[in-house]
Amino acid sequence: MSATKGEDFVLGIDFGTDSVRALVVDAADGSSLGQAVEAYSRWAEGRYCSPRDKRFRQHPLDYVESMEAAARRALGEAGLSARSRLRGIALDTTGSTPCFADASGRPLSLSPEFADEPDAMFVLWKDHSSVREAERINALARSWGGQDFTSFEGGVYSSEWFWAKALHVVEANPRVAAAAATIVEHCDWMPALLSGSTDYRTLRRSRCAAGHKAMWHASWGGYPPAEFLRRLHPELVRFAASLGAETWTADTKAGALCPEWAAKLGLDAGIPISVGAFDAHVGAVGGSVAPGTLLKIMGTSTCDIMVGPRPKGGEPLVHGICGQVDGSVIPGWIGYEAGQSAFGDVFAWFRRLLSWPFRALPAWRSGAPSAAGGSSAADVDEIEELLLPALEAQAATIDPAASGLVALDWLNGRRTPDADQSLTGALVGISLGTDAPMIYRALVEAAAFGSRAIVERLRAEGVTIERVAAVGGVAKKSPLVMQISADVLGMEIAVSAGDQSCALGSAMFAAVTAGIHSDLLTAQAAMGSGVERLYKPDPARVAVYDRLYKKYRALGAFVEAATHSAAEEKAR
Amino acid sequence: MSATKGEDFVLGIDFGTDSVRALVVDAADGSSLGQAVEAYSRWAEGRYCSPRDKRFRQHPLDYVESMEAAARRALGEAGLSARSRLRGIALDTTGSTPCFADASGRPLSLSPEFADEPDAMFVLWKDHSSVREAERINALARSWGGQDFTSFEGGVYSSEWFWAKALHVVEANPRVAAAAATIVEHCDWMPALLSGSTDYRTLRRSRCAAGHKAMWHASWGGYPPAEFLRRLHPELVRFAASLGAETWTADTKAGALCPEWAAKLGLDAGIPISVGAFDAHVGAVGGSVAPGTLLKIMGTSTCDIMVGPRPKGGEPLVHGICGQVDGSVIPGWIGYEAGQSAFGDVFAWFRRLLSWPFRALPAWRSGAPSAAGGSSAADVDEIEELLLPALEAQAATIDPAASGLVALDWLNGRRTPDADQSLTGALVGISLGTDAPMIYRALVEAAAFGSRAIVERLRAEGVTIERVAAVGGVAKKSPLVMQISADVLGMEIAVSAGDQSCALGSAMFAAVTAGIHSDLLTAQAAMGSGVERLYKPDPARVAVYDRLYKKYRALGAFVEAATHSAAEEKAR
Repeated sequence: MSATKGEDFVLGIDFGTDSVRALVVDAADGSSLGQAVEAYSRWAEGRYCSPRDKRFRQHPLDYVESMEAAARRALGEAGLSARSRLRGIALDTTGSTPCFADASGRPLSLSPEFADEPDAMFVLWKDHSSVREAERINALARSWGGQDFTSFEGGVYSSEWFWAKALHVVEANPRVAAAAATIVEHCDWMPALLSGSTDYRTLRRSRCAAGHKAMWHASWGGYPPAEFLRRLHPELVRFAASLGAETWTADTKAGALCPEWAAKLGLDAGIPISVGAFDAHVGAVGGSVAPGTLLKIMGTSTCDIMVGPRPKGGEPLVHGICGQVDGSVIPGWIGYEAGQSAFGDVFAWFRRLLSWPFRALPAWRSGAPSAAGGSSAADVDEIEELLLPALEAQAATIDPAASGLVALDWLNGRRTPDADQSLTGALVGISLGTDAPMIYRALVEAAAFGSRAIVERLRAEGVTIERVAAVGGVAKKSPLVMQISADVLGMEIAVSAGDQSCALGSAMFAAVTAGIHSDLLTAQAAMGSGVERLYKPDPARVAVYDRLYKKYRALGAFVEAATHSAAEEKAR
Repeated sequence: MSATKGEDFVLGIDFGTDSVRALVVDAADGSSLGQAVEAYSRWAEGRYCSPRDKRFRQHPLDYVESMEAAARRALGEAGLSARSRLRGIALDTTGSTPCFADASGRPLSLSPEFADEPDAMFVLWKDHSSVREAERINALARSWGGQDFTSFEGGVYSSEWFWAKALHVVEANPRVAAAAATIVEHCDWMPALLSGSTDYRTLRRSRCAAGHKAMWHASWGGYPPAEFLRRLHPELVRFAASLGAETWTADTKAGALCPEWAAKLGLDAGIPISVGAFDAHVGAVGGSVAPGTLLKIMGTSTCDIMVGPRPKGGEPLVHGICGQVDGSVIPGWIGYEAGQSAFGDVFAWFRRLLSWPFRALPAWRSGAPSAAGGSSAADVDEIEELLLPALEAQAATIDPAASGLVALDWLNGRRTPDADQSLTGALVGISLGTDAPMIYRALVEAAAFGSRAIVERLRAEGVTIERVAAVGGVAKKSPLVMQISADVLGMEIAVSAGDQSCALGSAMFAAVTAGIHSDLLTAQAAMGSGVERLYKPDPARVAVYDRLYKKYRALGAFVEAATHSAAEEKAR
C-alpha cells in the first residue's frame, strides 16, 4: 500500500486552548493544501471563567462554530479537487476537558435549560476547581487497600483530570448531574458530533483520554470499579457505567461524516471520522515520536512523549512519570507521557521580574508617563519582547563552568519524575558579580537538567531513548535553549520542520483510519515534515554539564527535604 | 570630674576611604561647633590604583593635605573661642592600611625617590594584591605546630591585613623594602605627623590595629616571633622588630601637637594627640557601644562591635569571629569585632540586577537613546535611585510567613561566624508568582538572619548581648531593614542620632586623653548623641522569624556542604 501524490487528502483538526486549527494535507507526503485558524469567540470574551479562582469553562458552541469556520476556510483554500478526494477526518483536543451530557451524548449546555450554566460546559484542562476532589481521590487510592488505580497515571491523581472534575460538578451542582446521562471528553464529543451520533452508548471513547486521565486500564477491566467510585460519590458509579468498558485508539473509526456536517463543510457524507485523542499525544505523532525517539513538546511547560514495545508478560510500571497507556500515542505501542510543569514559563518569569521597574516606577521615562503613573502596558510589552533576545545574546557567551550558579526549575512544582506540586525553584551560587544574563543562563540550564532527570528516569525504568526530537515554540525560537538542552542531555535534538504538528498528527491518524496508510509509523514516514534544525552536543560542554547536573540533583534533594520537613512541621 | 559646657573643646578626625572629616565638639555634651569634609584629590582621580586587579593605594599627601584643609575649616567654623580652648585631638582611619616608612617614620613615598611608587604608599584596606600571601600565612599558621597566631583574629588571616600586605611588598618590591626601616599603619602615622615625631622608635602603635590585624597579642608577648615570620620572609623579622612589643589604647597620648602643625591649624602647640585606632571601632564608641550593647555599623557591609569584661583567668577565645582584642574598642574591656561581608551590598546587587534592562536594551525608551545605544549613565542612576524605595514600599506589605522564599546573604562570602570567602548567596522557594518585592524582602530577611547568626555565636561563646544599637547609612535610610532586623533578632534596635559617629568617637577619645573625662564610658555618657529612632520587635513576627531562621540555617548548611564538596572534587 503506498499513496500517490494528488490522489488522497485528509483533514486534521486541532482544538487548542484558545482556537481551533484545520489543516488539509495530501496523504501521500503530508504537504499542506489549506489551513485556517479560528478563535473561540465566547472564550475570547472571558465568559464563564473566573481566572482568580482558576475556573475555566468553554461553551460547546465555541467548538462547533469555530470548527465549522476553520474547516470551511481550510477546505476552501485546498480547492474542489482536494475536497472531492477527501478520505478521512481526525481531530485532537486539549484534555482532560470533560462535559456533562444528555442521553444523546450532547453537552447539557446546548439545551436551553443549561445554556448559561458553567457546570454544564466543558471543564477546560487547566481548570483547578477540583483541587480538593483530587486530594480525596488520592487519599482513597492510598488507603482503600485494593488495586492502586492511579498507578499507570504516575501514582498521583491531578485536579486537572476527569474524575476530579466529575466529582466536583456532581457535588457542586446536583441539578446538572441529575440531568446528565454521561460525561464526554472534548475529544470524544467532536467525532460524535461530526458523525451525527444520537446515542451516548455508541460513542467510541478515546484510549488516550481514558488511559491517561480517567484511570482506565485493561488489567482491571476498564475504569475503576463501582466499589471504589461509590466511596467518592454514588453518582460516579452511574457515570462510570455510562462510559462502557472499552476504549479505542485514534487510528480506529469513530463514525462517518453525517449528511448535515457534510453539507456544512462541502464534503461527501460517509467520510470516516477517527476516534479522537489529546493534542500532546497527537502532536508527538505529528512531530516524529517513534520507538527510541523522545519527543519533547517545548512551550510554557514541556510534554515529553515516548513509545516503547508492548512487553510480553504484563505491562511493567514506569515509576514516577505522568502515565503509560497502551496505544495512547502510536497504536500497538505503549505510550509514555512525562513533562516539566514549567519550561518557557521559567524564562517568562525572569523576564517579568526584570521588567518590574517598568511597571512599578512612576517615572521610568521622562517623556510620556501613562495616566496610571507607571509605564503604559504597551510600552512594557514592547520592552518584554526585547528582553529575552538580549538576555539570550549575552548568556550565550558565558562559560557554564565558571559562573558557579545552579538553579532549580521547579517554579511551578515538579511534574516528572515523581510529581510533587509543593516543590519550588531555587538559585544558588549568587555573588555580587552575578548579573541577569548569568541568571538567565542558569535558568536555561536548570530547565535542561529537568529534561535530563526525565530521560534518566525513563532509562532507569527500562525505556530505550536513542534520539530526541522537539516541537513547540521554545524549540523554534531559542537556539540557546536548544543547544544547552543538547549539551545537557548529551544527545542530538532534531527540531521538526513545520509548526502544525498537532493538526498534522491528526491528519496522519485520518490517513490510517481511511486505509491510505497501513499504520501510523508508515503514515509518519510518508507525511512527516522532516527536520528543520539539528542541535549536536558539544563534548566539552557535555562533560561540564555532567558535573553541574550532580549539583542540580543535590540542590533538588535539599529543596525536597526542606519542603517536606516544613510541611510536617506545619502539620504537627 | 565633670565638664562644663563651653569650657573644653576637642577635635575628632575621621579618615574614611574617600575623604577625611574633622569635627569640633564641646567635650561637655558632644555638641558640634564645626565640621568639614575634604576628599582625597589624587585618590579621586584614580591615581596609583588598578580596580581590575583590586589594587588600591593612597598617597600620604592626600591625607596630609585633606586633613589640613578639613581641620582648618572645621576649626574656623567653631570660632576663636573654641580654638583657644581646644584640649585634645584624636583620629581614626581605615585599616589595615599600612605603608613602608623610613627611619623617621615617614612614608617612603614622601621622598622624591619613591614619590610615584605605589608600593611606597598606603596599601588601602580593600587592596587585594596579597591574596596568595594571605594563603601562605594561613597555611603556615595551620602547619607549623606552635601557637596559632591567627586565633584571636578569627582563625583565618585575611589578604586585607598587615602581614599579608607587608609580605607582598617585600617580595614584589625589594627596593622599597630595602629602603624602609619600618611599616606604619595609617592610624599610627597621623598622630606621629601631628606631633612632629622624627624617630620611628617613638611611634605609639595602636592596640586596635595591631591586635585585630597584625597578630599582636599579649599572651605571646606581642607580634609573632622571628621563627614564625622568617618562614614567610626573613625581611619580616626586621620589620616586626621595628614595631616594638608594646601597643597602646586610643585613650592614651601618642604625642603633643608640634609647632608646625599648631601653626597650620591655628592652635596652641602642645595639645595632646591620642593614639590612633580604626574607624569601625571608634565609630562604635561614637555610636553607643557599651558592655551589653552590640553596636552594628550598617553600610555596604556590617561591622558588629561588642565589648565584654576582661575575664579573670586568661582570655577565653570566642570562636569564629573576626577578632577580640583587649582595649581595642573601650580601654579596660575586651573588644570583639564581627561582621557581614555584604549587607547594603546585597540590596544594591538586586537593584543592579533589576536595572539591567535599562543598561542593556538599546531602546528602552523611545525618546532619547544615548549614543552608546543603551540608556545614558545618568538616566540609569536616576532609575536606580528610585528602585530601592519602590521595592521597600511594596515589600513592607508582604507577609513573611506566606511568601515561602528564603535567601542566603553570603553574596560576598561570609565574614562571621566562621569566615569563609568561598561561600555564596542563594534563594529558594521561587514560584511563578514570585515578584521583585518578595525577593527584595527575602534578601532583607537574609541580611537580618546573618546578623542573628552573629548574635547567636557571640552568645554561645559567653558574650552577653542585652541591647542592639546601630549607626551607618542603612540604619538611617531603611526603616524596613531596621524593623525586620529587630523582628529577626527579637531585640530592640536603637539607631543613634547624628551621622558622625566615627569623628565623634575620636572626639571622645581626645576628651579622655586630655583628662576632661575620666574614662571612655563617662565620655560616651556625656558626649553621645542619643537615640534617633527605636525599632521594637513585633512578637508575632518574632515567632515567624524564629521558624524562618531555621530554614535559613538549613539552607546555609546545604550551601556550605555543597561548596566544600565541589572544592574537594576540583582538588582531586
